[in-house]
Amino acid sequence: MACYKFYYCLLAALCLCSFGSYAQKKLPQQNTLFTAGHATAFIGGLYDAYYPYSKLKQHGDFGLGAPDKLDGELLVLDGRVYQTQHTGKTFEVKDTELTPFSVVNFFRTDKTFKTKVQLTKDKLYSYLDSVMPNQNGIYAIRIKGAFNTIKTRAFPPVTKKPYIPLADMLPLQKFFTFNNIKGTLVGYRIPAFMDGPNITGYHFHFLSDDKQKGGHIIDLLADDITIEIDQMDSFTVDLPQTNDFNNFDFKKDRREEVKRVENGKKN
Amino acid sequence: MACYKFYYCLLAALCLCSFGSYAQKKLPQQNTLFTAGHATAFIGGLYDAYYPYSKLKQHGDFGLGAPDKLDGELLVLDGRVYQTQHTGKTFEVKDTELTPFSVVNFFRTDKTFKTKVQLTKDKLYSYLDSVMPNQNGIYAIRIKGAFNTIKTRAFPPVTKKPYIPLADMLPLQKFFTFNNIKGTLVGYRIPAFMDGPNITGYHFHFLSDDKQKGGHIIDLLADDITIEIDQMDSFTVDLPQTNDFNNFDFKKDRREEVKRVENGKKN
Repeated sequence: MACYKFYYCLLAALCLCSFGSYAQKKLPQQNTLFTAGHATAFIGGLYDAYYPYSKLKQHGDFGLGAPDKLDGELLVLDGRVYQTQHTGKTFEVKDTELTPFSVVNFFRTDKTFKTKVQLTKDKLYSYLDSVMPNQNGIYAIRIKGAFNTIKTRAFPPVTKKPYIPLADMLPLQKFFTFNNIKGTLVGYRIPAFMDGPNITGYHFHFLSDDKQKGGHIIDLLADDITIEIDQMDSFTVDLPQTNDFNNFDFKKDRREEVKRVENGKKN
Repeated sequence: MACYKFYYCLLAALCLCSFGSYAQKKLPQQNTLFTAGHATAFIGGLYDAYYPYSKLKQHGDFGLGAPDKLDGELLVLDGRVYQTQHTGKTFEVKDTELTPFSVVNFFRTDKTFKTKVQLTKDKLYSYLDSVMPNQNGIYAIRIKGAFNTIKTRAFPPVTKKPYIPLADMLPLQKFFTFNNIKGTLVGYRIPAFMDGPNITGYHFHFLSDDKQKGGHIIDLLADDITIEIDQMDSFTVDLPQTNDFNNFDFKKDRREEVKRVENGKKN
């Protein structure tokens, strides 16, 4: 393990253009990870939206989430909200529309790293671990550059209630593979103690530079990327004031379901 | 169970002066439960304070918590912060001092109930359950009146690191019994999904009307009380940016410890 860490420290050092830069001073309210909705409830089938994008933008200019009735995947970049449907169609949503679950923050770069070494998803995550050593830190991560391969998925919309849990929707997800594509990964590394309101570990969505392609990251091969990191020091969870939420059973253990949803694997 | 509920509905009806009143309109930021520190980390032994009371007051005028190095118990009422030490001494703290863990909100009464029926702690909690039917609601509860009996506890301060977990401090707690006393219970009912950053279920601290007696509620017998309830729709957790917190192991299961600490029972 120690040896493994050393390799990635070395890799970090070898990325000659790696540098740390402490950017503009953040206001306290800009250093909070804001969640509209609750991940456990969402994964359990609460796909009906309740939180307007106009209000979401007051809590962040960067993030990811889900559209109303699970109609694809959502990404927030530079203050704009994009939806990628299961058809692959990607477009900007209207401020008046609503989300059932989204995670946003005001992205203010704490540190920047550049790497030109080809990295698989696992190697990228290990590299990120090496530059984010605080296991209990909440990190927002923006990765922009050229990718050899990006594999994403998007869910089709649900149509009638009661909705089935997200893990049971996995056979219906659609996959997309993009080669030699430029774009941005928007995501987070969420610490273990946020399991429940959020999803722990790495979680990325993708948007191509031409804003025409996107989805939830399943796999990737990075060629030449710039990684920006923003560490937060607090989190806020907004709870849906709905009957569905009030009656949701939070005592059921859904950890296995969450893992399957993140990996996009049916079993 | 249904029969049980019916009994408390009847009890509610019998409390002739019971009434619901929707009070002043709340600003969005006033409807958030704010936590400085993380309950799991605190219970695990992170008693070193980091968050100033001056800053805590910006997030609430009502609440409870712990003083630096676990030196007793803490209560926030009408914007003032009171400490009760293991000697029983109760006094207002200075704004410049710090807390390792506190939970506060701006208390704005949603509903008020009065009862003159003598209630044990269990009966009081069952009555509260009957008037707060949303199992996933975050409720702040202020109970003012006359009590036949109030039994509280307070911890002595820790002196040297590494500190032992709170459950192992239980043999050192001091108990106080007050008879025929007037005062206020300050507390919360925290839903299951907040287990971790907070402590689920009912949690009350006490302050006498003369501000001379207090502590964490172990038991009580209420004579004539006014219950005010304030439901919140979001929660915020501020995380200590300290090495102790960054290195804290959140993967250990501490549920049994938390239960023992709440009840004040050693085993």
